[in-house]
Amino acid sequence: MSTSPIAPDVAAAGQRAAPEQLRQAAQDHLWLHFSQRADFAHERPLPIIASGDGCYLTDVDGKRFLDGLAGLFAVQIGYGHGEEMGEAAAAQMRELPYYTNWNAAHPRAIELAQEVASLAPDGLDHVFFTSGGAEAVESAWKIAREYHSLRGERRWKAIGRDVAYHGTSMGALSITGLPSLRAPFEPLVPQVGHVRNTNRFHRPEGETEQQFTAFLLDDLEQRIESEGPDTVAMVIMEPVQNAGGAFTPPAGYFQGVREICDRHGILLCADEVITGFGRLGDWFGSTRYDIKPDLITSAKGLSSAYASIGALIISDKVAEPFKQPGAMFTHGITFGGHPVQAAIALKNIEIMKRERVVENVADHQDDFRRTLAPLLDLPIVGDLRGTGFFYAIELVKDKDSRTGFSDEEAHTLLHDYLSNRLYDAGLICRADDRGDPVVQISPPLIAEQQQFDEIAGILGEVLTEAATRIR
Amino acid sequence: MSTSPIAPDVAAAGQRAAPEQLRQAAQDHLWLHFSQRADFAHERPLPIIASGDGCYLTDVDGKRFLDGLAGLFAVQIGYGHGEEMGEAAAAQMRELPYYTNWNAAHPRAIELAQEVASLAPDGLDHVFFTSGGAEAVESAWKIAREYHSLRGERRWKAIGRDVAYHGTSMGALSITGLPSLRAPFEPLVPQVGHVRNTNRFHRPEGETEQQFTAFLLDDLEQRIESEGPDTVAMVIMEPVQNAGGAFTPPAGYFQGVREICDRHGILLCADEVITGFGRLGDWFGSTRYDIKPDLITSAKGLSSAYASIGALIISDKVAEPFKQPGAMFTHGITFGGHPVQAAIALKNIEIMKRERVVENVADHQDDFRRTLAPLLDLPIVGDLRGTGFFYAIELVKDKDSRTGFSDEEAHTLLHDYLSNRLYDAGLICRADDRGDPVVQISPPLIAEQQQFDEIAGILGEVLTEAATRIR
Repeated sequence: MSTSPIAPDVAAAGQRAAPEQLRQAAQDHLWLHFSQRADFAHERPLPIIASGDGCYLTDVDGKRFLDGLAGLFAVQIGYGHGEEMGEAAAAQMRELPYYTNWNAAHPRAIELAQEVASLAPDGLDHVFFTSGGAEAVESAWKIAREYHSLRGERRWKAIGRDVAYHGTSMGALSITGLPSLRAPFEPLVPQVGHVRNTNRFHRPEGETEQQFTAFLLDDLEQRIESEGPDTVAMVIMEPVQNAGGAFTPPAGYFQGVREICDRHGILLCADEVITGFGRLGDWFGSTRYDIKPDLITSAKGLSSAYASIGALIISDKVAEPFKQPGAMFTHGITFGGHPVQAAIALKNIEIMKRERVVENVADHQDDFRRTLAPLLDLPIVGDLRGTGFFYAIELVKDKDSRTGFSDEEAHTLLHDYLSNRLYDAGLICRADDRGDPVVQISPPLIAEQQQFDEIAGILGEVLTEAATRIR
Repeated sequence: MSTSPIAPDVAAAGQRAAPEQLRQAAQDHLWLHFSQRADFAHERPLPIIASGDGCYLTDVDGKRFLDGLAGLFAVQIGYGHGEEMGEAAAAQMRELPYYTNWNAAHPRAIELAQEVASLAPDGLDHVFFTSGGAEAVESAWKIAREYHSLRGERRWKAIGRDVAYHGTSMGALSITGLPSLRAPFEPLVPQVGHVRNTNRFHRPEGETEQQFTAFLLDDLEQRIESEGPDTVAMVIMEPVQNAGGAFTPPAGYFQGVREICDRHGILLCADEVITGFGRLGDWFGSTRYDIKPDLITSAKGLSSAYASIGALIISDKVAEPFKQPGAMFTHGITFGGHPVQAAIALKNIEIMKRERVVENVADHQDDFRRTLAPLLDLPIVGDLRGTGFFYAIELVKDKDSRTGFSDEEAHTLLHDYLSNRLYDAGLICRADDRGDPVVQISPPLIAEQQQFDEIAGILGEVLTEAATRIR
């Protein structure tokens, strides 16, 4: 309880509080995520986003931004479908605002499960709904353990990749390959192994793609051998890894991973929380790279983040032992398959199909890359990588030697300088220093040449300036 | 991908599929939570809930139910506010369908944080939003660890209570005191201790309430000593424990728990995912029992489950070390503070205040108990316990000796018999065998004498019948 900077009668009357009132109330009561409280206490004003349209956002001061991050790798259809999505939500609210998926169901969860199964790769026909991506990852690891157990094997370990982000609940966090995120909270779930990711930028000169693939597969094989193959329940990988900056797989990689998993009886989970629902120009990255996973985790794009919903998509192979009488996936989530969230996700998929959003990515991804490519000429830009509408620019101190920044330099550059400058310039994207320093670019999937040009234009200016400041 | 029992053109045209089509699609594609797949494959039809009004639900076959479980201990305002809630959701969708709480905010998250802080007990002023209850519990344990770390102490352990349910993500599951839910997924997060809960039904005859309290506090003290007090980050308890069946605290219990935590520098978290937002006749159970927690977890009732939103409410004491420059709670959730979910929760609180929903519980809880009390005369009913609109009936094989059922008997009675019979009789409540066998009763907080009578009437009939079948 506390005094109230937004007068209750103002809030009740639906009137809008002034920006400074909102900022004070946020400082007093709203705990931000992955944010230093001190940042917004004194020096810089907290960004408060008020409205959106298409690929653009406007803050409470009236400043307009191009959202080059699609919210958080999520808003596939952009911000302009509120009318139609709102009607879908309201219609479901009137009909049935809530019910569970616990020994019961309701029409929207069933319809959405069927719709998701129809879009998923062949053989992935079963959908377990969650409230988001981390819960989908938790559910994947849990079902992998119980699957093996029902088949008479005790396997519990997971193998993820270095620098990969899979969520922050303790199970998902254990799999996350970022020691800086795990360390404050250890001990976590034990016995997760991390293997090399597909970052090729710092590999030895002259290494061929084939050699790189062989190196990565050997690393995975060795890790599995080292853990004891019959203790490993699941290998989990993003088709294109986000943290560290849009690491695409080299040729043959996922075919090799699949072969290794099969040989050792390990389930393969594709974490498609980011890559699912069109970001790579296909409904699922697993289809694009022919991964043939046993499990797919999904969330953000499933509803274009208009809802809080995620899904674990389960193959017929994994479902099989759960069909025995008495068998059960001993797992559940109160809001899993929430009817309003499901209705919103259904409408999102309908809009994505109608407006050919996935096709827009497939059709324009080459234009996007071509528009970003000249940034590689800047002295501070070491690498441009990615695919679809999913790119990262790695910043380097010395381009010829590919020398990076010290941790302190990277933090100053990204946290103190670039984030603010990009924001001032009206571009939301992410300056991330959790792996090597990168700028992540992931616009709504409805973006077109005009947005590509704006992104490239602003990045060009700000990174040019950054290069002069850092020396 | 698979063939589609709901024809796509039917779904696209917004037409309603027939119940048998929906059941087939559910069997093929929707993975239910905490459900045996085989259950609905052959023998009994899957319940598919189609609509709701007030305290009632209707399934796709037109059968009507009194929802004596409020969805899942969640739908405080009942199912009849879809029009108003739908308008709130739609308005927010039009304005801003999504944005994050990551180094940014938006008006609805700020307003909801302020509103929740104003309802929470004194000194709990900071709100970190999640997508549900388990995520709030994960967040509580994580902030407890990081709080101690920022103050120069390394504390990581948590202490929960036997049979208590705190969620199914791996961190929350580790705290959950139900070995049957943990066992299929171990190893989990290590070093959680579980202490006795406040179930008094099976305590020795003649033990006074004061002696019971002393016994429980001694158990907690011993557990903390045994773990090593300076390794324990957090004690987490529900004000009234749900799993096992509505265990209320004996007099002096929470004051003793608070004193023990303070003496050992341990944070006390009240898990109010169920008890928060009115179920016990107060906005928070912590207020009702004067618990003075450092952290409160919340979810379900926060939005009456019309949204997928939860919250960790943080005291000024815990917030303090995070105010230092450079300090950060290293945690975040994509959908945390989602603007549409926040708008729905704000509207829910507005409705709860306007319709005096919490007062309805306070005013009628004695009538509810009085109406349920005659069930205690049935031979199969050993105990009736609870408070507010939150009750459990413990079933016994022999009433005089308080002898319970074997695991197999309990499973047959609850899973195979009672669940089905109650459903057939038109009452949704939960026959739960995770602790001792109980029937849990937790209606929407708008229930009145008519619903109390219906609940007691149906339970009386079905339990009388059950008693004759079990002998």
